[in-house]
Amino acid sequence: MNKQPIKIGVVAPACRLNPAAAEKVHAIAAESYTGGRVEIMIHPQCYLSDGHFAGDDKARAAAFLEVANDPSVDAVWFARGGYGACRILEAVIPHLAPAATAKTYLGYSDLGSLLGALYRQGFAHLAHGPMVMDARREGGEAAVRRALSWLVDRDPAALEPSLAPGQKAAAFNITILAALLGTPFEPDLTGHVLMLEEVSEPMYRIDRSLFQITSHPAIRRVAGIRLGRCSDIIPNDPDFVRSDVEIITDWCTRSGIPYFGRADIGHDVGNRVVPFG
Amino acid sequence: MNKQPIKIGVVAPACRLNPAAAEKVHAIAAESYTGGRVEIMIHPQCYLSDGHFAGDDKARAAAFLEVANDPSVDAVWFARGGYGACRILEAVIPHLAPAATAKTYLGYSDLGSLLGALYRQGFAHLAHGPMVMDARREGGEAAVRRALSWLVDRDPAALEPSLAPGQKAAAFNITILAALLGTPFEPDLTGHVLMLEEVSEPMYRIDRSLFQITSHPAIRRVAGIRLGRCSDIIPNDPDFVRSDVEIITDWCTRSGIPYFGRADIGHDVGNRVVPFG
Repeated sequence: MNKQPIKIGVVAPACRLNPAAAEKVHAIAAESYTGGRVEIMIHPQCYLSDGHFAGDDKARAAAFLEVANDPSVDAVWFARGGYGACRILEAVIPHLAPAATAKTYLGYSDLGSLLGALYRQGFAHLAHGPMVMDARREGGEAAVRRALSWLVDRDPAALEPSLAPGQKAAAFNITILAALLGTPFEPDLTGHVLMLEEVSEPMYRIDRSLFQITSHPAIRRVAGIRLGRCSDIIPNDPDFVRSDVEIITDWCTRSGIPYFGRADIGHDVGNRVVPFG
Repeated sequence: MNKQPIKIGVVAPACRLNPAAAEKVHAIAAESYTGGRVEIMIHPQCYLSDGHFAGDDKARAAAFLEVANDPSVDAVWFARGGYGACRILEAVIPHLAPAATAKTYLGYSDLGSLLGALYRQGFAHLAHGPMVMDARREGGEAAVRRALSWLVDRDPAALEPSLAPGQKAAAFNITILAALLGTPFEPDLTGHVLMLEEVSEPMYRIDRSLFQITSHPAIRRVAGIRLGRCSDIIPNDPDFVRSDVEIITDWCTRSGIPYFGRADIGHDVGNRVVPFG
């Protein structure tokens, strides 16, 4: 086990962090890792507010670049999702320094925009997994411990259980991956097991996003798809009749992409870590 | 004025048509065009029901192909939007006969999936404009008359007023165009004035779809963008602060796409006709 001290920088490229979540994460880290082993540095940008966002685009881009390009920081842990990461992509991608490539990035949901764009740039230490704000969920302590155990010790117990050595993988929120397609930030997922999850969407939107994802010629080169949890589904009028699994198997059949079953990821405290690649 | 009889075929690639809308449209057509000048043939598929859709994918694809490939039909007028057109694209595109290329197609909203895909196939007589179901809106008779006046007589008064001779144009629902990007059905809009409209979305989704649209390298080759009406906006939590015009001008500025101002299109009875090309 790596006993080097690790410095984790927290930034919020999307929505504002609740200070109570940060406090809870500090407490969990202090209890779990003694002797100054883990330092969590919450960037003040996380608490800015500009309408929908944790500060305006300039502030969010600057904070991300500051932390990503800081050689003393080992890992960037995203504060929370919501919406906003895609708005800073064009501003940050050209300014990433070599120190940014070396470090680890952990997040999910809206942060898939940034993870996807960094993956396309060849970043090798990206992962889908719990964020700081998950501390606020009921039972969220488990999610925080899981994220930290992976960031600090690469604990295999944190990993999505179907991950297999030698098999590339990546995980995305369905809506977020769909919104990257056709843009210069679209990741190359050839040969990957693509794990997908969704939250707070009606079924017809999930269906439409999966049309876009599975119709995309490059996505058709994935090894296969696994479906995480689709939670808090918004009622469809008229009823969509089909379930999330029926929808994904339908699109996989049409597109010739193998469907490998469920993935243990989603917008909940059970959300497991999926390293990209 | 062309005094030839015209046969209009109505199909429903998305949701089910309300029979009352069809009756109203028949009445308007009978009153406006005498002597058998206009025949409106509502395909029985329009009244099928399969969960969310006007019949299952097979039934909707078959009805569309039957009418599109029928040399006796002059125009395909789409019954209504909702969701579903994208689900039949892969089934219908390879089976379009020469008779399909010759005729006119009119619709908007979800039907943008089909119009975009047909445009990519080189179809020359496609237009954004009112559908049969618009008869059910308050004041919807005006929308129906406008659609018919364009289908039957190519009445210039039906057209979106900023359209100019020699300047290509196309119109799409924002969400629908975004969902085509990266797929084999994505239209080539190089040099076009791209008119966009939206309905029933929160501002953050409009912003995200415009990120995708304006980040797309091919879309950056449009002549410029005009914004139609964004109606029935779903409240954003937290408030998005920016208006629809502020959002589009922001993305146009970032992407270097000229913003040409408003377009007279939207999910309402004022929706004007925008022929593609």
